Amino acid sequence: MTALILFGATGDLARRMLLPSLAALDADGLLPEGLRIVGTARSRLDDEGFRAAAAEAVAANPVSARAARPGFLARLRYVPLDATDRPGFRRLAEAVAAGEPVHIFLSTAPALFPPTIAGLVEAGLAGPNVRLALEKPLGSDLASARAINDAVAAAFPEERIFRIDHYLGKETVQNLLALRFANTLFEPLWRSEAVAHVEITVAETIGLEDRGDTYDATGALRDMVQNHMLQLLALVAMEPPSRLSAEAIRAEKVKVLASLRPIGPAEVEAHTVRGQYVAGAIAGQPVPGYAEELGRASDTETFVALKVLIDNWRWKNVPFYLRTGKRLARRKSEIILAFRPVPHSIFGAGTSAMAANRLEIGLQPEETIRLALMAKVPGLDRAGMKLREVTLDLGDRTAFAEQRRRIAYERLLLDLIEDRPTLFVRRDEVEAQWAFIDGIRAGWHETGRAVRPYTAGSWGPAEAFALVGRDGVTWHD
Amino acid sequence: MTALILFGATGDLARRMLLPSLAALDADGLLPEGLRIVGTARSRLDDEGFRAAAAEAVAANPVSARAARPGFLARLRYVPLDATDRPGFRRLAEAVAAGEPVHIFLSTAPALFPPTIAGLVEAGLAGPNVRLALEKPLGSDLASARAINDAVAAAFPEERIFRIDHYLGKETVQNLLALRFANTLFEPLWRSEAVAHVEITVAETIGLEDRGDTYDATGALRDMVQNHMLQLLALVAMEPPSRLSAEAIRAEKVKVLASLRPIGPAEVEAHTVRGQYVAGAIAGQPVPGYAEELGRASDTETFVALKVLIDNWRWKNVPFYLRTGKRLARRKSEIILAFRPVPHSIFGAGTSAMAANRLEIGLQPEETIRLALMAKVPGLDRAGMKLREVTLDLGDRTAFAEQRRRIAYERLLLDLIEDRPTLFVRRDEVEAQWAFIDGIRAGWHETGRAVRPYTAGSWGPAEAFALVGRDGVTWHD
Repeated sequence: MTALILFGATGDLARRMLLPSLAALDADGLLPEGLRIVGTARSRLDDEGFRAAAAEAVAANPVSARAARPGFLARLRYVPLDATDRPGFRRLAEAVAAGEPVHIFLSTAPALFPPTIAGLVEAGLAGPNVRLALEKPLGSDLASARAINDAVAAAFPEERIFRIDHYLGKETVQNLLALRFANTLFEPLWRSEAVAHVEITVAETIGLEDRGDTYDATGALRDMVQNHMLQLLALVAMEPPSRLSAEAIRAEKVKVLASLRPIGPAEVEAHTVRGQYVAGAIAGQPVPGYAEELGRASDTETFVALKVLIDNWRWKNVPFYLRTGKRLARRKSEIILAFRPVPHSIFGAGTSAMAANRLEIGLQPEETIRLALMAKVPGLDRAGMKLREVTLDLGDRTAFAEQRRRIAYERLLLDLIEDRPTLFVRRDEVEAQWAFIDGIRAGWHETGRAVRPYTAGSWGPAEAFALVGRDGVTWHD
Repeated sequence: MTALILFGATGDLARRMLLPSLAALDADGLLPEGLRIVGTARSRLDDEGFRAAAAEAVAANPVSARAARPGFLARLRYVPLDATDRPGFRRLAEAVAAGEPVHIFLSTAPALFPPTIAGLVEAGLAGPNVRLALEKPLGSDLASARAINDAVAAAFPEERIFRIDHYLGKETVQNLLALRFANTLFEPLWRSEAVAHVEITVAETIGLEDRGDTYDATGALRDMVQNHMLQLLALVAMEPPSRLSAEAIRAEKVKVLASLRPIGPAEVEAHTVRGQYVAGAIAGQPVPGYAEELGRASDTETFVALKVLIDNWRWKNVPFYLRTGKRLARRKSEIILAFRPVPHSIFGAGTSAMAANRLEIGLQPEETIRLALMAKVPGLDRAGMKLREVTLDLGDRTAFAEQRRRIAYERLLLDLIEDRPTLFVRRDEVEAQWAFIDGIRAGWHETGRAVRPYTAGSWGPAEAFALVGRDGVTWHD
């Protein structure tokens, strides 16, 4: 027997991702036979109430809606619990058998980490049979992240802590590892000699939604850059690990994170942009500004763009341009490797049309890998050879079309249950990420750097274009 | 006014390629307005007879059949001529206006070059208004090639001599230049550090057809390797030219040809295979052997495979495997760049499925450019990441589908008429090619290397597999 305990089981993440992912894994026969899923939250539900909510969540997600088996709901139990409510933890402990493997998925506000850990310890839910998965936010700065990590480490050794960054569960992110390390074509070019710059974009069209004060206390830098985007950067930039093991890969990632050139008060002007959306329109529909949605004026950034440099041999002077924002023109997450142009054109008149090569790794809304190359325009070339860009597609639409697309959490939940830590984030990574982010925030604070308005439905404030434009670059849109 | 004089106008090449190409160019409005096409050969035809034959040829080629305009035939004239018949050359000269641009296309047996040149000179058809295109075979060895080149050079300066290798007229061969020199992705890898070996295959399914004694006196080495295959090799291997000009490109090609490591008596055993087909079956149909088709026993090779090395920095120790033959399993011409495998696999269990990257440039039956890469198999990787090869297609089927495919001679004839010599072969190239080929033939002669039988419909004699197998390579089929 095995148990999976979901903290925050009535929350947004459980509803949108975790329960549909578990239902999909169940439908594929991938969950251990006797696995019980114990939901817990403050809501006063019983098992049936939780099952009804879960059934609704499963039906609402297109991936799980088609596949789910009725038997899935029978796995579900519910234990109401408040983090400060010690008897609740005892009831939780009673829901699992002594010594059976227990996987705890903790998605909670940073302030609740210490009492939750204490409750688990007291209830005997921190033994060697227990693995703990932690969702973001893991703190709000380096100090609070360390406090959380210390509290967790007091009860669980690092090898039983699974810090989740769901971007790592995406098929294409893992494919990036295959692309880099299973091919000789790319790795020799994957460095400053051949790469002009790297772009990482995570663009949303949604606004504040119901995150309200929580988001306003966080901002785009901490909400998206600190975790997902720095993890993507680390995977793109890392040296080849000696093998595809958790320790080898995480050791390479943390080396990158520790090599990020700090951005402080002297750099924020040239290397960062803060933005906040004002009323505009997306896909023809008018949308309000952030302040209207929030109900008050705020200096929280809903957009951030960074020019990041990595101080190591491989990436010397290669800018990594990161940008993320809400209410942008289009939903897309992508990584672009822009290669350097050819050193000299032999093509004379054709030159004007010659674009530098580009590798485009799309994560959202579709997972794609595309290679943009120059080729000859067919023809008789009476006025010289003409060139044009053609795009080779390594994406799911062609070669991979036969497989169903999984929710990123499916992969991560199964890895948690089956103890494969490779795609989870190690403590030193999280702390290196915070150290970099704290530097930027301190820089903003010291220089009084205010948010710049951008119209909802645009690609962010004009300053974001200037950030890359100063280097002769335009964002790939 | 302009004239194009086609020697051998009733021959196979004119019928299959030249007249259809000219009709297609005419249909596209690409021929100069007043261009007259004067056919000449030994046949006693008149203008109308030649037009009837041309109409038949144009209708028989699918490219020209659809496009041809009735007005095309009005461009045609015919002058019967024997190369030793001086009055015939005077009649030919009367068919062109004094001083108008004249383009002469000479496709004739090597022995007829000197009297033909002499006839042209005597008739005043070698003036500065005349350009001369020469079809293969340009000699049967270095000495005879020099004799031909000397005879031609006595009447025409090199810049008015257009030596044709119709492989250079192929869209994909020119695209190879774009691929190499308009992209940063390939050139850094286009060398011994990243390329394990190169394969060049020109495989035919046809047998002797009606070439009889002519082919038997030639053999595959001189028929296909000396010209087309060494030109392809030179284009693949050459250094970047400073511009896409005739002189710059030909200077780079001749450097490669002059750097071919000679294959002599000591090397023919390990570096060459000679084959001759015996009766077999192709596409389910029985076909006779070469000796039966020829009507006698012969030691002429209908198949040749070579391992060629280039003694320069870029290609040190990278084998170029060349093979060509008649009555092989499938008609195909292709260039394969096989990249080196990754130096170390990080993938553990997935390793067994890991293939080295490959660039496949197809010339026949379809023109294609494909890149074979490894990618992750989508899935949950419970037993480690699985990899598989995916093929990216840069070919005409996708990006280039909207353009009609031209006959290679269309491009070359237009280049001749409009004086663009880039895709023609310079004297020093031809002679370097012959020097290399003569060495092999001398080696065969000295070591008494006989042809090895292969079954029609196979991929050649077993020795061809051993040739590459000794290096741990298998041909890409």
